[in-house]
Amino acid sequence: MPGTPVGIVGFSGYSGAELVSLLSKHPHVELILLEHREGSDHPRPLGHNGPQRLPCSADSVRSAGLAAVFFATPPEVSMELAGPMLDAGAKIIDLSGAFRLGTAENYKRWYKEPHTQPELLKEAVYGLPEFCRSRVAAARLISNPGCYPTAANLAIKPLIEAGAIDREHGIVCDAKSGVSGAGRKASIKTSFCEVTENFSAYSILDHRHVPEVLRTSGLEEEEFSFTAQLIPIHRGILETIYFRASEKIASGEDLLAIYRGRYASEPFVRIYASGQVPDLHAVAHTNFCDIGWKYDPATRRTVVVSVIDNLGKGAAGQAIQNMNLALGYPETAGLL
Amino acid sequence: MPGTPVGIVGFSGYSGAELVSLLSKHPHVELILLEHREGSDHPRPLGHNGPQRLPCSADSVRSAGLAAVFFATPPEVSMELAGPMLDAGAKIIDLSGAFRLGTAENYKRWYKEPHTQPELLKEAVYGLPEFCRSRVAAARLISNPGCYPTAANLAIKPLIEAGAIDREHGIVCDAKSGVSGAGRKASIKTSFCEVTENFSAYSILDHRHVPEVLRTSGLEEEEFSFTAQLIPIHRGILETIYFRASEKIASGEDLLAIYRGRYASEPFVRIYASGQVPDLHAVAHTNFCDIGWKYDPATRRTVVVSVIDNLGKGAAGQAIQNMNLALGYPETAGLL
Amino acid sequence: MPGTPVGIVGFSGYSGAELVSLLSKHPHVELILLEHREGSDHPRPLGHNGPQRLPCSADSVRSAGLAAVFFATPPEVSMELAGPMLDAGAKIIDLSGAFRLGTAENYKRWYKEPHTQPELLKEAVYGLPEFCRSRVAAARLISNPGCYPTAANLAIKPLIEAGAIDREHGIVCDAKSGVSGAGRKASIKTSFCEVTENFSAYSILDHRHVPEVLRTSGLEEEEFSFTAQLIPIHRGILETIYFRASEKIASGEDLLAIYRGRYASEPFVRIYASGQVPDLHAVAHTNFCDIGWKYDPATRRTVVVSVIDNLGKGAAGQAIQNMNLALGYPETAGLL
Amino acid sequence: MPGTPVGIVGFSGYSGAELVSLLSKHPHVELILLEHREGSDHPRPLGHNGPQRLPCSADSVRSAGLAAVFFATPPEVSMELAGPMLDAGAKIIDLSGAFRLGTAENYKRWYKEPHTQPELLKEAVYGLPEFCRSRVAAARLISNPGCYPTAANLAIKPLIEAGAIDREHGIVCDAKSGVSGAGRKASIKTSFCEVTENFSAYSILDHRHVPEVLRTSGLEEEEFSFTAQLIPIHRGILETIYFRASEKIASGEDLLAIYRGRYASEPFVRIYASGQVPDLHAVAHTNFCDIGWKYDPATRRTVVVSVIDNLGKGAAGQAIQNMNLALGYPETAGLL
Repeated sequence: MPGTPVGIVGFSGYSGAELVSLLSKHPHVELILLEHREGSDHPRPLGHNGPQRLPCSADSVRSAGLAAVFFATPPEVSMELAGPMLDAGAKIIDLSGAFRLGTAENYKRWYKEPHTQPELLKEAVYGLPEFCRSRVAAARLISNPGCYPTAANLAIKPLIEAGAIDREHGIVCDAKSGVSGAGRKASIKTSFCEVTENFSAYSILDHRHVPEVLRTSGLEEEEFSFTAQLIPIHRGILETIYFRASEKIASGEDLLAIYRGRYASEPFVRIYASGQVPDLHAVAHTNFCDIGWKYDPATRRTVVVSVIDNLGKGAAGQAIQNMNLALGYPETAGLL
Repeated sequence: MPGTPVGIVGFSGYSGAELVSLLSKHPHVELILLEHREGSDHPRPLGHNGPQRLPCSADSVRSAGLAAVFFATPPEVSMELAGPMLDAGAKIIDLSGAFRLGTAENYKRWYKEPHTQPELLKEAVYGLPEFCRSRVAAARLISNPGCYPTAANLAIKPLIEAGAIDREHGIVCDAKSGVSGAGRKASIKTSFCEVTENFSAYSILDHRHVPEVLRTSGLEEEEFSFTAQLIPIHRGILETIYFRASEKIASGEDLLAIYRGRYASEPFVRIYASGQVPDLHAVAHTNFCDIGWKYDPATRRTVVVSVIDNLGKGAAGQAIQNMNLALGYPETAGLL
Repeated sequence: MPGTPVGIVGFSGYSGAELVSLLSKHPHVELILLEHREGSDHPRPLGHNGPQRLPCSADSVRSAGLAAVFFATPPEVSMELAGPMLDAGAKIIDLSGAFRLGTAENYKRWYKEPHTQPELLKEAVYGLPEFCRSRVAAARLISNPGCYPTAANLAIKPLIEAGAIDREHGIVCDAKSGVSGAGRKASIKTSFCEVTENFSAYSILDHRHVPEVLRTSGLEEEEFSFTAQLIPIHRGILETIYFRASEKIASGEDLLAIYRGRYASEPFVRIYASGQVPDLHAVAHTNFCDIGWKYDPATRRTVVVSVIDNLGKGAAGQAIQNMNLALGYPETAGLL
Repeated sequence: MPGTPVGIVGFSGYSGAELVSLLSKHPHVELILLEHREGSDHPRPLGHNGPQRLPCSADSVRSAGLAAVFFATPPEVSMELAGPMLDAGAKIIDLSGAFRLGTAENYKRWYKEPHTQPELLKEAVYGLPEFCRSRVAAARLISNPGCYPTAANLAIKPLIEAGAIDREHGIVCDAKSGVSGAGRKASIKTSFCEVTENFSAYSILDHRHVPEVLRTSGLEEEEFSFTAQLIPIHRGILETIYFRASEKIASGEDLLAIYRGRYASEPFVRIYASGQVPDLHAVAHTNFCDIGWKYDPATRRTVVVSVIDNLGKGAAGQAIQNMNLALGYPETAGLL
């Protein structure tokens, strides 16, 4: 039984390649690569040509009847392609930052370029299924969340909603990512010898993922300090989140109750016993977000650890979760 | 010209091996290995036997006339050997935690064992030269600081002293270390396959290095949140330190003025221009501590990054700096 | 629809964990863990308990009606368990070296211990499906090949059979493996700091995998030089194989013709265009063996590169391929 | 006492940076950086400006009275600069391949470009001190050997000279290098995510370092098979060399006698007991070449392992060794 045809633009980057890998095993779709300035650069075994390829155009969307198209592209490419491909009848799942920030002003502030499609920006739905599942299901244009905000919001938002955080003292999110988060490109900064046996901080206090956390969690900028850092590994994000718990919280079990209440029926968020925290291996090559914490009852200081695979729940995995919702498949199809 | 004889106990661990490597090139000392349960386990080239070896005993100290002995040993071994070797006339530089915490009660709380040498504990001088140079020079028993506290105290203490931190909001120190910080031993947790492509947090809020920071910086426990984390690299510590600056601080330059004032004549602390931060490569295989920061004037949120080589300024390098002071050599001898 | 029950002994090692991961997604089986001295040592998310567990015994095999049991165990454990579990009705796929060498004498020479089950040794079928598919399908006791011999034999055997190698000049196989090949255990030699930024050779000319290559390929010991080496990565084997082609071979295309002839219908062996060679990423997390080569027509010097994932085609993947054959499932079930 | 002024062109690459690091501690020279299209790209600590900088020109050589200049540059830059700087009175140590191959024809074959300075090519001395010490001492233009040929020739040449190798059977050199050997540049192929958890072969049978081995060792091309491979580490070369020993060799001790005879008084070549081989850690950050082997008396199959630090004895270290000879300093100055 042939699956529903879906397309990918940007399949040779790391998120794109992960989409190809996951969608090739998806039970309900058939994958088509939409070639946009990409060539194949690796030797390939003879006779293993991979998915069908078409030119990247609205015509290809129409002729192949693509139900959905993934954009694993820079934001300016996403802005250029979204309108025509929506008109051609595909739902769009955009992995770039083009449609994440809600307003053109906000986009201009953080991405340093004007937004060229403000009307589409209004229509876009932010695809964090755990907090906006029904809107995703109804959307034409889904903006897949950034990797850092996914791990941060899943850890922080339930606590904010429950009033579990003493916001006066502020929240610190110390974030670390594998190098694939920087994309696949020739660059001294991400060359092997610069990264191995190293660890470095970047975009301190002004990373463009910060506004996604503020917008989703409801925090104010002055309440939230964020640093991104590069781990010498391929894939994985670990965020160490510090705050003082509010007076409502008297034990680590109280935090457990909040998380379990919020995530009991979520297939991709896993919670640890109070005092235990996950490492990156726990979520590598999966679509899970794993959350654990340590709480000090004497001082209410709290440290939450949230981990994802930046190419899984942080990019391609979550994009497929969104596609499943938008096309009416079981939410976990192709992801467990 | 033969150098002054000095000894090492524990030369086959990572800190010990770094001591051997550095002291072999030191212009004023001659190195002797004091064998304490160690065998050599690596193939060695023929005819390259390394330094002289003697049994680990007070008699060896006397007969060889050792002016100083380094202990790169577990705390219980340091406590056992310190008294007899001091009596034999050597100055002791102990790299373990045995003599760092000031009181036997504090030691018991954090190391979970009783302290067997409380009298020596009183005599021990904490060897952070930038803050107690003259006491180190006069000491018989020098307690070499922990790796994490060295990076933390050098970054924090000048700011505390200058009243530059709004302590009400607390200080977060998110610390990351290479695997050599865990010592050289057979363990699943530090085996290659468990560490590579991974990143993990441990000893959240209760690491035994915390009391060293509190004692030196003057912070209270409730003001200071600390998490230790394992980077899949051999050596290096990076600490990302978050706080809200006090109203005294109006710009990143104000922080620069404090650090430059404090460290202008320090040979091993290097400061970056405001807004620039060091990475681990900046200090690998050196005795430097490099410090940089980012300050947000709108909210006074501040992030300081402090880096050392955990085997350099975090262990062997600092131990030699302390030896230089204690034996009257130039402080930088063998370290630049 | 519940799958056929199959068991694993030794599920906490690297091969065992890979079996668990692959079999959990296998469409036709249901997995049961047979606990043999193993505890769980990692924090686990709440409510995610993994497969059912039973004591490791012939009774469990009977009561659960296990159709097959995988042994990811040391050879002495495999020898102890094989008889009783065969009697209890399970087919056995043994990933250890216990049943690979054909005779007890050979086993004694290479494994330095007497073989305790010489009768079973005679019955065991060597499970390299590309060369003994029908025997595997009929076997009760399948000996899963070693990782190094799998990559070597798939590259060498078709050339030997075709008379494409000038055996007088000898064959060199320079083999490199990721660290998971050494198993999951506490050991200084495989600790992170000893392996990272290192590369080392071991078991030069006397690795216990050598007799598997000789037995399968038909080479004599003096014709075959083999060195094993440790790459600082988790998983993957690359073998660089050097020989002088026989006079039958006039071009790289002649080698291509041999390989394509032999492997045209094999689902898990992939061949590259002459002059192109695979790297480890080509086969990571797969059951493929990829083979490429460079041939110099002026001198007939030839270099073949053969790569596998040592936990895939080199262990768990191939074991499942063998199980599929033995239980009558499609050979690729759960592996593509 | 101010040292003799020496210059470096190409100081921001990996070999150049290693030269800067080593020469900064050299007891007899004072370092000057000759800026040739380079900018500084890393944040630097305030007040630590490094060595003096001058424009890269013959005038700078004259005005600063440079006794020697190192070229850590591409071959075309070396060819352009060598003449003028020799005329300006400096001895040249060139780390590129520009002057290694003896004839313009050979250069053209392997480097695919015409040689623009054939007269200088005739004058250049190949700087492998263990085999041409006196010629190096008298040379104006020293061609520093390639990294792979250094490890290969030091291992092979004494055996060739002693008739210890059965050359009819050929010699295989399977070579592996850390990524710094590819130079410091933006490239997908050497980006972190492509290299980590990977291992790959390149330039099989036609690496441009092959003719250096042939020229120095006296082997014919058809006798020598060479493959270069990339290890996911920063620095280090390990070569595994296979051959059949000649009938002169009856034991591993016979090989030991040859090596010890040849290298007894060499400060930078270290030999292991027969049957023991070095790993990369043995030579990291040193100028040593370490050599060990395994010999099988039944078949005379022999495997030699030769290791260097590609930035040490493979580049900057050996360049300084050559400079020491050329300027009359002790050969080991600044290198032990």
